Amino acid sequence: MIYLDNSATTPPYPEVVDSFSKVSTHYYGNPSSLHQFGMEAENLLTRAREQMAELLGVQSKEIIFTSGGTEGNNLAIKGVAFQYQTRGKHIVTTTIEHDAVHRPLQQLEQLGFDVTYVPVDQHGFVSTEDIESAIRPDTILVSVIHVNNEIGSVQPVIEIGKMLKKHPKVVFHVDHVQGVGKVPLNIREANIHLCTISGHKFHGLKGTGALYIKEGVVLSPLLSGGSQEFQLRSGTENVAGAVALAKALRLTMDHYQKNVHRISAMKEQLIKALEKHDGIVVNTPVEHSAPHIVNITVKGLKAEVFLHSLEKKGIFVSTTSACSSKKKQPSKTLLAMGRSEEEADQAIRISFSYLNIEEDVNYIIQSIFTSIEQLKEVMRDSR
Amino acid sequence: MIYLDNSATTPPYPEVVDSFSKVSTHYYGNPSSLHQFGMEAENLLTRAREQMAELLGVQSKEIIFTSGGTEGNNLAIKGVAFQYQTRGKHIVTTTIEHDAVHRPLQQLEQLGFDVTYVPVDQHGFVSTEDIESAIRPDTILVSVIHVNNEIGSVQPVIEIGKMLKKHPKVVFHVDHVQGVGKVPLNIREANIHLCTISGHKFHGLKGTGALYIKEGVVLSPLLSGGSQEFQLRSGTENVAGAVALAKALRLTMDHYQKNVHRISAMKEQLIKALEKHDGIVVNTPVEHSAPHIVNITVKGLKAEVFLHSLEKKGIFVSTTSACSSKKKQPSKTLLAMGRSEEEADQAIRISFSYLNIEEDVNYIIQSIFTSIEQLKEVMRDSR
Repeated sequence: MIYLDNSATTPPYPEVVDSFSKVSTHYYGNPSSLHQFGMEAENLLTRAREQMAELLGVQSKEIIFTSGGTEGNNLAIKGVAFQYQTRGKHIVTTTIEHDAVHRPLQQLEQLGFDVTYVPVDQHGFVSTEDIESAIRPDTILVSVIHVNNEIGSVQPVIEIGKMLKKHPKVVFHVDHVQGVGKVPLNIREANIHLCTISGHKFHGLKGTGALYIKEGVVLSPLLSGGSQEFQLRSGTENVAGAVALAKALRLTMDHYQKNVHRISAMKEQLIKALEKHDGIVVNTPVEHSAPHIVNITVKGLKAEVFLHSLEKKGIFVSTTSACSSKKKQPSKTLLAMGRSEEEADQAIRISFSYLNIEEDVNYIIQSIFTSIEQLKEVMRDSR
Repeated sequence: MIYLDNSATTPPYPEVVDSFSKVSTHYYGNPSSLHQFGMEAENLLTRAREQMAELLGVQSKEIIFTSGGTEGNNLAIKGVAFQYQTRGKHIVTTTIEHDAVHRPLQQLEQLGFDVTYVPVDQHGFVSTEDIESAIRPDTILVSVIHVNNEIGSVQPVIEIGKMLKKHPKVVFHVDHVQGVGKVPLNIREANIHLCTISGHKFHGLKGTGALYIKEGVVLSPLLSGGSQEFQLRSGTENVAGAVALAKALRLTMDHYQKNVHRISAMKEQLIKALEKHDGIVVNTPVEHSAPHIVNITVKGLKAEVFLHSLEKKGIFVSTTSACSSKKKQPSKTLLAMGRSEEEADQAIRISFSYLNIEEDVNYIIQSIFTSIEQLKEVMRDSR
């Protein structure tokens, strides 16, 4: 079994599952309770927050725990929109954001906000100049994905952040979900105000995540109530989830150097072999792309059929993003790059994690080639 | 150690923690993925949803999984407000709701919605007549707590639901967080449209919960994105959390009969003994109250001081609700019942779970009496 759908989700580190169980069992107190059980839980939560902050190079009061990437993105976007709407109702984003950014923006459009979707080039990159040109006096938010989840292109968020220093009233949100632990990003230097991360993309648990909120940025809370998480995210804190998230991030960052080179090498080997095949188009750009994602179009073969053919060989990949798979939607990112609907329909995403080994790459390549042959043969026979 | 803060949070069932770990480890696939790992995860999610539905006597397509009670309440309230605002902008609620209902309503007031807070009587009950009188042609939502989290009074939600049949355009939301597994509620018969539950209040895990959404009721999603949970709650599904939630609910319902009578008996024994003490006022009504909550005012003694005195004797209780404890706010419910700020400041909440045993009740009573004596003595000496 070779699991290559790590951009959809990753298996959690055993140590992370273990920490979650231990904290849930032994430190079940409500951090808001005034007695010892509450205090113990609160201490664990504080330590998890401090760890997260240290690993991300920010202050601990700038980290709030969420239920995942979708919540982080929704809170960032709607939180800014509702908080700063008297200042302006214009938002700038790109055409290759994840649905967890696109959909909240569409909801805001229905509420009277104006959103500019800046296009990307044929390689899947937005340009800083285009983002800047889109900014208006009533712009309150710029939201840009760091690593695109479908093709792995790394957007120039550092450059965009630098440019935005000239526009101090604009809040800068970065969807860092696919980037964290794979493509280094200095949140502070990049002048980012809001940064979303999700636990289950780096071997943490589903239902866990965090949002970085730069000191001074105010958000209208999405979940209001008991005023937890500095009044920005109410609800009894998932202490075990927070501890598990911090642990997953620490393990990921600890082994970053070792893993990222190994994963990059596998990716390069795979791309080199696949681009020689005249039935394959590699959609992932060679430069400025994440180490773990390879997106290809297999000409003339429906992605879903190809996916199941690879599955029979023990290889698990995805068509587009996981959330779009079920809806049978063609890859939004590829369409934004100017590819035809047919090409976008034939796209396969291969995504690595540290658990993949070099020894398997040849088998992966061979399986892709064999699947193409087999499926083409079936198609010839059925004519 | 006698833990009596079960209204704040409960220790999870060991089986629930175990299920969470197993599912996280072995079924880590993204339910949206098209391959076997995705399908296995999706099957588990479907089964958890079916179990929840069966236990609550509703259809499985009417259950969506959330990150907890606060999210459920926020989604219900804001989801109705944004969806049905063209129909009207008036909402009816009570003065004794949890902050996870009050605060979202306050946010809506800032956005131009009009909220009527129907008062309660001196025993902590709202009347169906008063709720009905508050309804206007532009009312879109009635939101009433089932079991009040501070004093345990059970609100007439069944009667209110019946009354609301005369007002078919009004959506009825019930915050069932303190009630589920302790006070039976037939969601369908009570004509409830939206019903919030939270896992960690019945020995499930923090970060888990569900919202019942009656077929036909449409909500504007709070978390939009990949369209999971029937497009009402996006985000990669916390499959392990859903399985754990269903298991916790099953265990709670399975042992309901046995546990509820035991807990009720402890509560009655406690109330009978405490109300004889002339330094104590029992705030929990004898009739129509939940089996697990006893709220008392200890005259002349600050609740926080009293709490720590009991803690020294190995007994863990709370002042007001957990979320309000840290903010040093007096009990909102007691103020709404007409008690003075001083009386509300001196309130202690004792809340049982199935883990408490009858043998401990006498020790609890004696400890309360001893703490009163000791603290009064300290006060006399310090004069």
